[in-house]
Amino acid sequence: MFTIKELQNKIDLTLSAQKFEGNPPLLYEPIKYTLSQGGKRLRPLLTLLACDLFDGNIENAVYPAIGLEIFHNFTLLHDDIMDKAPIRRGKETVYKKWNTNIAILSGDTMFALAYEFMLNTDNKVIPQILPVLNQTAREVCEGQQFDMDFETQDNVSIADYIEMIRLKTAVLLGGSLKIGALIGGATPENADYLYNFGINIGLAFQLKDDLLDVFSDVEKFGKMTGGDILTNKKTFLYLKAYELAKNEELQNLNYYFNLPESEGTQKINGVKSVYNTLNIEQLTVDEMKNYYDLALLEFDKINISEDKKQNLLDFAKLLMDRES
Amino acid sequence: MFTIKELQNKIDLTLSAQKFEGNPPLLYEPIKYTLSQGGKRLRPLLTLLACDLFDGNIENAVYPAIGLEIFHNFTLLHDDIMDKAPIRRGKETVYKKWNTNIAILSGDTMFALAYEFMLNTDNKVIPQILPVLNQTAREVCEGQQFDMDFETQDNVSIADYIEMIRLKTAVLLGGSLKIGALIGGATPENADYLYNFGINIGLAFQLKDDLLDVFSDVEKFGKMTGGDILTNKKTFLYLKAYELAKNEELQNLNYYFNLPESEGTQKINGVKSVYNTLNIEQLTVDEMKNYYDLALLEFDKINISEDKKQNLLDFAKLLMDRES
Repeated sequence: MFTIKELQNKIDLTLSAQKFEGNPPLLYEPIKYTLSQGGKRLRPLLTLLACDLFDGNIENAVYPAIGLEIFHNFTLLHDDIMDKAPIRRGKETVYKKWNTNIAILSGDTMFALAYEFMLNTDNKVIPQILPVLNQTAREVCEGQQFDMDFETQDNVSIADYIEMIRLKTAVLLGGSLKIGALIGGATPENADYLYNFGINIGLAFQLKDDLLDVFSDVEKFGKMTGGDILTNKKTFLYLKAYELAKNEELQNLNYYFNLPESEGTQKINGVKSVYNTLNIEQLTVDEMKNYYDLALLEFDKINISEDKKQNLLDFAKLLMDRES
Repeated sequence: MFTIKELQNKIDLTLSAQKFEGNPPLLYEPIKYTLSQGGKRLRPLLTLLACDLFDGNIENAVYPAIGLEIFHNFTLLHDDIMDKAPIRRGKETVYKKWNTNIAILSGDTMFALAYEFMLNTDNKVIPQILPVLNQTAREVCEGQQFDMDFETQDNVSIADYIEMIRLKTAVLLGGSLKIGALIGGATPENADYLYNFGINIGLAFQLKDDLLDVFSDVEKFGKMTGGDILTNKKTFLYLKAYELAKNEELQNLNYYFNLPESEGTQKINGVKSVYNTLNIEQLTVDEMKNYYDLALLEFDKINISEDKKQNLLDFAKLLMDRES
């Protein structure tokens, strides 16, 4: 078994050994730029942890793992065009630095590259792991479309929101684990339990993201908080507040969410004070814990010795306790 | 062996049996719309012809064949955004009918769908055929980027142009044939000969397209001619004319290409008269025949009986002789 640190090193070394160069340069430079911006490398780490959980050879999993990181970065690249996001990880986004056409096309190329990396493994698992990526890719697109639809939709329920983040975020975490498990030789049942673990961890992970955006310590978080409030994003916190707010609280919520971005400080503080009155932080933590517990129940079903399970359990806990 | 007509029917029936429905509707409606616009269905036909050439079971090839058609339509969908093309096959393009974000995302979903269809075949050929699609997909993106680069580039040579159309158009024809051949049980050598046949047919096919845009009979062509001249597109005809034009012809070429689109008739007629003086139509036909002959040389190397080869030879001839 490997430590988390060893697996992270394996990913960093393999990724930094890739050239991502080619012709025409305007197609490949944005790819190199995107993949050298850092990031948590969460998805490839899940793939290697899953492979290692079943005593698989991580050499067979490392290229598919990198493929999943490339796929994830492709989705971010296209999302940034759609969301008109100027900055990602502190740097200009590709469509801002170059232009929309180049961002569309270098994104498409990354999607193809993701599949190239996926094939660099044992031939006999290819027909098992590719359907996982295919389904995941389609569902991530569905999630992004739901997210865009919600912007102009008035009647978004919390159930709708959970389904959206399942598709947009959780399935790729589940898929990364399942692909690693299959490469590692897991039975289909164990691979599915791990997938379900990943889905629930993914939901909890996104709820934690929603929380951090509002309630984190700015210094530890590393970026401005309140961005979701500023843009009236329909997060779990927003939807829960609207579910609970009555009378004066409802008026206040409407008042502050209708303030323009130019009155940002007043808007953020106003919404946060309603959230505090309604106990939204604790309710979100409870919901997060709920999915975390569901994840652990799924993990329990996996039929292998407990000592092998410790790495993934530690890592899941780390994701829940993170402050950025 | 099947007739071309039987294979075309197989493709049409299989494609029209697909639902392409799902949630959210804004993601799937553009996919259904795109795939119901018709088109020559050239790429899936090449896949089935290639499978049949080697006495393969076309049931194993028909879903990958549809996958290649979906992939092709995905590239058109994204290209239309980049090229700001309002009309395709007589209908509004997706980004015009819906919007750019929806066109980006439904295109991405089609890319994932293409891979889903590709896996619906005999498991043992999957590790052979997927690298062909991966390489093809990346090269098609490279071709589109070169094409966009050429718009603002002054020193495009005919060799540059041929390399661009090899990537943008020919590799997908070659790839469709190779995938069909591999599913049909061809040896790697025979599959590669067929790929090279497809590359050369693809180059000839694109030169024919360039020719038809300028010199076709409008009624048979089914749409306006001269579009490439109007937009100063650097086609084989344009580049050959600039290679040959001297003195007065060069002045005329510059004069007419510098006319605005609003003086379309004068612009098209002026450029065509220079093309006629320089014998550009015949020179393009010669170049086309040159690639067609190279294609036949590659086809000759395929080690199977001559009677089985007739279908593909007939079809290649049809592509060269087409009037639209």
